[in-house]
Amino acid sequence: MEFVFNGKKIYYETMGEGQPILLLNGIMMSTGSWENFKESFSANNRLILLDFLDQGRSARMAGRYDHSVQVEVVGALLDHLNIKEINLVGVSYGSSIALQFAILHPTRVRKMVLFNATCRTGPQLKAIGKAWNEATKLPTGEGYYYTTIPPIYSTAFWDKHLDWMQEREKTLIAFFGNDVVRESLVRLTDSSENYDVSEQLWKIACPTLVVSCTDDQLVPPAEQRRIAEGIAGSQLVVIPDCGHCSFFEAPDLFTSLSLGWVNSKTVKIF
Amino acid sequence: MEFVFNGKKIYYETMGEGQPILLLNGIMMSTGSWENFKESFSANNRLILLDFLDQGRSARMAGRYDHSVQVEVVGALLDHLNIKEINLVGVSYGSSIALQFAILHPTRVRKMVLFNATCRTGPQLKAIGKAWNEATKLPTGEGYYYTTIPPIYSTAFWDKHLDWMQEREKTLIAFFGNDVVRESLVRLTDSSENYDVSEQLWKIACPTLVVSCTDDQLVPPAEQRRIAEGIAGSQLVVIPDCGHCSFFEAPDLFTSLSLGWVNSKTVKIF
Amino acid sequence: MEFVFNGKKIYYETMGEGQPILLLNGIMMSTGSWENFKESFSANNRLILLDFLDQGRSARMAGRYDHSVQVEVVGALLDHLNIKEINLVGVSYGSSIALQFAILHPTRVRKMVLFNATCRTGPQLKAIGKAWNEATKLPTGEGYYYTTIPPIYSTAFWDKHLDWMQEREKTLIAFFGNDVVRESLVRLTDSSENYDVSEQLWKIACPTLVVSCTDDQLVPPAEQRRIAEGIAGSQLVVIPDCGHCSFFEAPDLFTSLSLGWVNSKTVKIF
Amino acid sequence: MEFVFNGKKIYYETMGEGQPILLLNGIMMSTGSWENFKESFSANNRLILLDFLDQGRSARMAGRYDHSVQVEVVGALLDHLNIKEINLVGVSYGSSIALQFAILHPTRVRKMVLFNATCRTGPQLKAIGKAWNEATKLPTGEGYYYTTIPPIYSTAFWDKHLDWMQEREKTLIAFFGNDVVRESLVRLTDSSENYDVSEQLWKIACPTLVVSCTDDQLVPPAEQRRIAEGIAGSQLVVIPDCGHCSFFEAPDLFTSLSLGWVNSKTVKIF
Repeated sequence: MEFVFNGKKIYYETMGEGQPILLLNGIMMSTGSWENFKESFSANNRLILLDFLDQGRSARMAGRYDHSVQVEVVGALLDHLNIKEINLVGVSYGSSIALQFAILHPTRVRKMVLFNATCRTGPQLKAIGKAWNEATKLPTGEGYYYTTIPPIYSTAFWDKHLDWMQEREKTLIAFFGNDVVRESLVRLTDSSENYDVSEQLWKIACPTLVVSCTDDQLVPPAEQRRIAEGIAGSQLVVIPDCGHCSFFEAPDLFTSLSLGWVNSKTVKIF
Repeated sequence: MEFVFNGKKIYYETMGEGQPILLLNGIMMSTGSWENFKESFSANNRLILLDFLDQGRSARMAGRYDHSVQVEVVGALLDHLNIKEINLVGVSYGSSIALQFAILHPTRVRKMVLFNATCRTGPQLKAIGKAWNEATKLPTGEGYYYTTIPPIYSTAFWDKHLDWMQEREKTLIAFFGNDVVRESLVRLTDSSENYDVSEQLWKIACPTLVVSCTDDQLVPPAEQRRIAEGIAGSQLVVIPDCGHCSFFEAPDLFTSLSLGWVNSKTVKIF
Repeated sequence: MEFVFNGKKIYYETMGEGQPILLLNGIMMSTGSWENFKESFSANNRLILLDFLDQGRSARMAGRYDHSVQVEVVGALLDHLNIKEINLVGVSYGSSIALQFAILHPTRVRKMVLFNATCRTGPQLKAIGKAWNEATKLPTGEGYYYTTIPPIYSTAFWDKHLDWMQEREKTLIAFFGNDVVRESLVRLTDSSENYDVSEQLWKIACPTLVVSCTDDQLVPPAEQRRIAEGIAGSQLVVIPDCGHCSFFEAPDLFTSLSLGWVNSKTVKIF
Repeated sequence: MEFVFNGKKIYYETMGEGQPILLLNGIMMSTGSWENFKESFSANNRLILLDFLDQGRSARMAGRYDHSVQVEVVGALLDHLNIKEINLVGVSYGSSIALQFAILHPTRVRKMVLFNATCRTGPQLKAIGKAWNEATKLPTGEGYYYTTIPPIYSTAFWDKHLDWMQEREKTLIAFFGNDVVRESLVRLTDSSENYDVSEQLWKIACPTLVVSCTDDQLVPPAEQRRIAEGIAGSQLVVIPDCGHCSFFEAPDLFTSLSLGWVNSKTVKIF
C-alpha cells in the first residue's frame, strides 16, 4: 500500500489486529527484510511495515536531507492510518528515527524497543559513513558489499552461517551494483551525518527497552548503555555473542523481546 | 486451592485464560511472592502458582529428600489440572526443578524460561548451602537473614532501594526467626545438595530462554552460559547490573522476557 | 622484624633491593599469605610485608577502631624504615588502606596497584559484614569458614582446585576455631563499617592501576570501575573468570600486573 | 641497522640491555610506530624492533606470499643477532607471526605477550581484508583511510582524542596515497588470507599472556579467549573500553603488561 507525503510516494504494509507495532528499518533494509517476521509480529498485533524515503518501494530523494524528513514520514503514516498512539520497534537507523519521533511526539509513542541503537553519529561513525560513501565510487557492487556488510554480522555468525552469508553476498553484490541503490544509500548515510540526540533523551516518556549486542562491531554496547542511562525508566538487556544485525542473528530474541515488551503490562514494585 | 500428593497437601493458585504458565519459586519464595506479577502474567495466559513442599502453604516434610519429589509435585499438579503441555518459568531453585521436569518429561514442556539458573550444585554452592544451614543454629532470624539475603540482591540494588530492603529486612528476620520456617529451609537447601543435570541438558527439547544477570553474586553468568550451551536451540540473554533476585530487581524485564518467549511464534530463518 | 606503634607491636618483613613495594593484606591474611610471592616480588624490588593490627604476628587491639589506625600504621612503618616514597599494592581490605593512605599522603605514594578494591562499605557489604560477625557466635570454626570463604573464590576456581580448597578448609576451620582470631576478625570487620572515600578519590595523584575480576562475588566489578573513574590517570584492567581472592586464583597475573606497573616508565603519547 | 634475508634487506633496531624483547608490528605499522615506547621498553631490557617485509624500511616483495616468510624473517633476525631465546610481544598481525614462530620453534620463545590477536583469518576477517584491498582501487588515500582506520580505534577513543585522530588522518591519507605503500598493504593483507593455527595452539610451550580489549571492533574478545583456551598455562587479561589499536589507546597498560609478564618470575601455588 502507499500514500503520498510531500509529493513523494511512501510504501507501507499493514497486517493483523491488536496493539499496533511499527517496525522501523535499518539503513540497508526494506519492508521485504521482514518477510520471516510477519507471521509472529502480526499474530496478536497490528504490524505496520514502512519503507523510508530512498528505501525499497518508497520514492527516491533528489538532494541531501537529514533524519527529520524520515521522522515526518513516520508521523504522516500514523496520520494516514489514523493511529493516535503507536509502539515503535527500531533497528539501527530505524532506532535513530524512533528516538527522534519519541522526542518530538512523546504522547504518540506508547512503548519503544530499540535494537543496536545509537543516539548520535559520533566521530567514529561519521568516518565509517565516509568509507561507505567512498565505496560507492568503486565500479561494481563488490566494493560496497565488502566495505559495509562484514562488520555488521558478528564473527561467530560468519563462522556459523557462512553458506547463508555467501548466498546473501551474491544478492547484495547485485543489489549494490545498481546505481539507483548506491545513490540512495549515499543519501541515507549522509542523512545521519549530523544526528545527535544525546542531550534530549530525557524528553522520552514511554517505557523503552534498549537491546544491546555484545559483538556489535558497528555500534558497540557503550552506546546503548548511554541511551538507557538517558531515558528514565528504560530497561537495558544484552544479547551475548550477537552482532549489529541482531534481527537476523537472533530472530527469536528479536521477536520475543519486542512482543514481550509491547504486549506485557508494566509491573510496579517500588 | 490445594490437592493431595502422596498424602501431603500442595497449595496452588490459578488465574486467567490462555497458554498456561507455571511459575516455579526460588527456595525462599512462596506463591505470595508473585503478588505484583499476577495481573500481567494472567492478562493473556493462564497463570499457575505453586508452593513446593516445605514452602508457603504446602505441607512440611519430615526428613531429608531431594529435588525429585518437587519434580513429581509439578507432574502431579499438571495431572490434577488436566494440563498436557505447560510453559515453565523458573527462578533459581525453581529453574532447577524446571530443568529436571523437562529432562524427564520432554513432551510435557512447551516452552521454558530460566532465570538465574544453575544445572548443578557445584562445590562452591554446596559450601554456601552449609553456611545457610549453619546460620539456622543461631538463636534469632538475624543470622539467617544476614547470611543468605545480602548477596542475593546486587550491590547496585542495595544502593538504590535501601529503604525497601530495610522494610524487607524486618519482615524476613521475623520470618526466619520461626523454627518451622528454618527447619523447612534446611530441608530445601539439603534437597539441592546432590543436584547435577549438567550431562543431561541435551535431553531438553523445548525452546528455552536462559536469562543471566551480570551481578548475580550467588550463581554467576558462566553457569547460565553452560546451560545455554547444553540445550540445543536455547537462547541466552543477559540483564546488566542485576543480581540473583532478578524478578524483584527488574520486574518488567522478568515479565516481558517471560511472556514474550511463551507467547511469540518461533521465527525460522536458517 | 617488628617495631612499636602507639605501644603496640607491629610485625613486618623486608627483603630484596630496588624500588620499594609494600604489599597490603586482605582482611583474613597475614605476612604468611605471601610465602609463594616473596621470590618474584623481591627479585628486582625491595619487598615489604606487614601484619596490620589484629593480623598475624602484630598486636591485638582491645576495642573498636576504624581504618584510620591501620593507615597510621603504614605511615609509621615507612617512617621506621626511613622510606620517603612507596609503591603500594593492596588486596581488598589492603586496597582500602592504600586508598586512604594515598588520599592523606599523596606525595608519599609513587605508584599504586589495587586488586578487588572498593572505595566504600556500601549497604550490601555492611550487611555481609554482619553475617561474618554473626558467624563468630557459632561454636566451631566451621560456621565462620562456610559463611566467609565460599564467595571469596570464584565458582570456576572451586571446580578446578577442589582438592586444594579442601586442604585449605581444614586449616582455616582450625584457624577460625581460635577465639583470639575470631575476636580479631570481628574488630577488623567492624573497622570497615563506616569506610567511604568515594568523594575523595580525586585527591589521589599517583599513577594507579585498578584490577577488577569478573567473578568477584564479594566486591563486583562496578565498584572498581567507580574507583578507576574517580582517580585521574588511573588505568583499569580486568581478569576474566577470576574471583575476589585474585592473588591465589591468578598468581602470575597478580605478580606481573603489580611488578609491571611499579617498574615500568610511564609512556606519554597525548 | 639491517641484514639480508634471501636477498632482501631487513631493517631492525636494537637498544638497551637485559632479557631481549622483540616487538612485532601490526600490519600498518613500522619500527617508527614505537618511538614513544623505546625508552620504557629498553630501560631494563634489550629491545628489538623489526620492519617485516613490505613494511617500513625493509624490502618490498614482488608477488604473493603468506605469513611463513615473515616467520622466517623473525628466525633469521634472531640468528643474525645470535639470540637463542627471545621474548615476543605481538600486536595484531605481529601476534599472528608470534604464534606461528612459537609453534614452529617452541624452544626459542621464552615468554610471549599477544595483543588483539587472532589465531585465524576467519570468513569475516577475510571479507574485511577484501574491503581493504578494494579500497586501494580508489584514486586517493582517503578511501583506504576511511575503510581501514575507523574501526581500529574504539568509539570512546575517537570521542576523546579527536584532535589527535584528525592530525593522524592527514598523515595517513598522505601515506596511503603512495602507490608503493598501497601495493605493500595489499600483499600484507593477502599474506593473512589463509592463516589458521587454531588447531596448533597446543604446541605452544611458553608462558603466554593474551590481552583482549572489550571494544576491539576488528578482532573481538571471543577470538582471544579461543587463543587463551588453546594454550596451556596461558593467562587472559582484558582492557575495558579499549579498541584494536591498544598500544596507542592504552600505552601504559601495553607497556606495563608486557614488561611485567616478561620480567617477572613465575609463581607456583598449585
